[in-house]
Amino acid sequence: MAGRQPIKFGILGCAGIARKVSRAISLSQSSTLAAVGSRSFEKASKFAKDNGFPDSARVYGSYDAVLDDPEVDAVYMPLPTSLHVKWAVLAAQKKKHLLLEKPVALNVEELDVILEVCESNGVQLMDATMWMHHPRTAKMKEFISNSHLFGELKFIHSCLTFAGGQDFLENDIRVKPDLDALGALGDVGWYCIRSILWAVDFQLPKSVLALRGPVFNKAGVILECGASLHWEDGKVATFHCSFFTDTVMDVTVVGTNGTLHVHDFVIPFVEDNASFTTAVKSGFTELVTGWEPKPSEHIIMTELPQEALMVREFSRLVGSIKFDGLKPDKKWPILSRKTQLVMDAVKVSIERGFEHVEVMS
Amino acid sequence: MAGRQPIKFGILGCAGIARKVSRAISLSQSSTLAAVGSRSFEKASKFAKDNGFPDSARVYGSYDAVLDDPEVDAVYMPLPTSLHVKWAVLAAQKKKHLLLEKPVALNVEELDVILEVCESNGVQLMDATMWMHHPRTAKMKEFISNSHLFGELKFIHSCLTFAGGQDFLENDIRVKPDLDALGALGDVGWYCIRSILWAVDFQLPKSVLALRGPVFNKAGVILECGASLHWEDGKVATFHCSFFTDTVMDVTVVGTNGTLHVHDFVIPFVEDNASFTTAVKSGFTELVTGWEPKPSEHIIMTELPQEALMVREFSRLVGSIKFDGLKPDKKWPILSRKTQLVMDAVKVSIERGFEHVEVMS
Repeated sequence: MAGRQPIKFGILGCAGIARKVSRAISLSQSSTLAAVGSRSFEKASKFAKDNGFPDSARVYGSYDAVLDDPEVDAVYMPLPTSLHVKWAVLAAQKKKHLLLEKPVALNVEELDVILEVCESNGVQLMDATMWMHHPRTAKMKEFISNSHLFGELKFIHSCLTFAGGQDFLENDIRVKPDLDALGALGDVGWYCIRSILWAVDFQLPKSVLALRGPVFNKAGVILECGASLHWEDGKVATFHCSFFTDTVMDVTVVGTNGTLHVHDFVIPFVEDNASFTTAVKSGFTELVTGWEPKPSEHIIMTELPQEALMVREFSRLVGSIKFDGLKPDKKWPILSRKTQLVMDAVKVSIERGFEHVEVMS
Repeated sequence: MAGRQPIKFGILGCAGIARKVSRAISLSQSSTLAAVGSRSFEKASKFAKDNGFPDSARVYGSYDAVLDDPEVDAVYMPLPTSLHVKWAVLAAQKKKHLLLEKPVALNVEELDVILEVCESNGVQLMDATMWMHHPRTAKMKEFISNSHLFGELKFIHSCLTFAGGQDFLENDIRVKPDLDALGALGDVGWYCIRSILWAVDFQLPKSVLALRGPVFNKAGVILECGASLHWEDGKVATFHCSFFTDTVMDVTVVGTNGTLHVHDFVIPFVEDNASFTTAVKSGFTELVTGWEPKPSEHIIMTELPQEALMVREFSRLVGSIKFDGLKPDKKWPILSRKTQLVMDAVKVSIERGFEHVEVMS
């Protein structure tokens, strides 16, 4: 890797999240900001200026122009979900590697179109699920994978909510049926489902059942929902996601011997470290007046923020293809697809009036 | 209260939990250990000796004898649930006030028998849900009742599990259909349901739906289960309880503005203080690289352990009846009954194959 050219990124659109990812591209030490395109040249120009793009970076008044830029290796695509299939396919056809915002697609049929075009064009796809790349995530995985400490995984609960507020609930793209038709399920629910699948090593549940009482807006977009996930071996998970309540980012993973708690899994409270709590074989004092042993907190430092680590990992994979002639890594597309499959099943369960829905792989 | 005679307690049976409550009776400053009865005089005698009973305390070889002791004001009853209705009725008929272990009864019909006899005999009933009496509980309630800080309550999740181990799963009374037929639902599930009802000021849900995949033993006793609870106004709660996994004692209460987390709600990690975490209007830093403001931890000291505060409150109510001629307080029996109603509905939902069950008051 040392001495290699950095991977040159083009940004499609000027979404708020693109500011964070632009900074990450600058920070990752293996990538550089090469271009930005927006339907408005002025917006793209301002974006480049405000977000530390180097003088060499190109500014375009269209997405197409970014894809036509021969110097661009990879694109970061934070477009509304309903536009993903069109622009992801075009990007792949132009041999641009693809860091795609979540939810990756409106349904698995659309995602499969994207995956096929990426594969046939030899481009890397990764969804932009930043927390997967925090070193804390690996440490947490280490704990729940340790059969001696954690035992057998039995139950997971994930909860992700934020209070969008009136303006968000009326105007954000995530509540618009033509832009992000999956609403809260696609936005916050995506993270819940991903965290649950992550905890079980991406073994798909046998079935899902949406909780009663989801909330929709007038256009029929989900603003709050939940579900239970069920595995053949008896594991159970529940999740709850909402645009209506204070920020919650909880994952609890419970095993026969141990417990993991994390309260900021998607966005750590602070940037340079993140913590989680573990308990192992918790018992009680003599008269059951306290716990023995007590849970312990683990603090994991990180030199780079998780989004920069994400960009670095993506760039590493792109570099392997570009410089070493390797094939795209299949892991990330598979994780995207499994997340999508469960999300689709939850949506079907809601649509069918809270029927139990088998998850098809 | 000052200068009043302490309330004189008789203990029915020598269950493990009776040791903790005997200590609490000694500690409460408003009660005294007056008698203990067991089917075995030797066991009762050893219990009295091991648990700091004063020399004046009587030791009996039967439960009846405790109830016939004219000096006994109140009994603590940690008997198996299936014996509650018989012994609670006898106790009330002998005018003994009743601190009754949870679950209070096998079903609401049995509980109503107990409640009627208590009422017609003018005796106080309180269930022995210790955590209700910790000063932390009042502080947490203060937070979630503060509409400015917490907003409107929308979602609750409660999880209570412990790893019983092989001996427990084979031999404990809580897995025996003739002794504690409610199994994990009655034992750990009771606390989940109580915590949820506590959070909503004991407003009964409209309906409950048991989660699929409960685990039973060969005798048909529930060892693990869960449910969702649904209110007319859209509030949702989920809980999970189990005898199979590491100790978890979580309650999360989520409002439009704020969030409450507690991880040791039933038995605090340590005896002399307990903490909880609140977040209020959590947002993010400029580039969404951290939380602003961050959640804050609150530590609540307690001079007496929660079980001693429970005994003190119960003794205060008994003293009001005994010395001031007041009527029994209706609050506690109502809370017991509401908890039982929800527990019964969860059981019915399981029995009917995970049907949605209306909660009848």
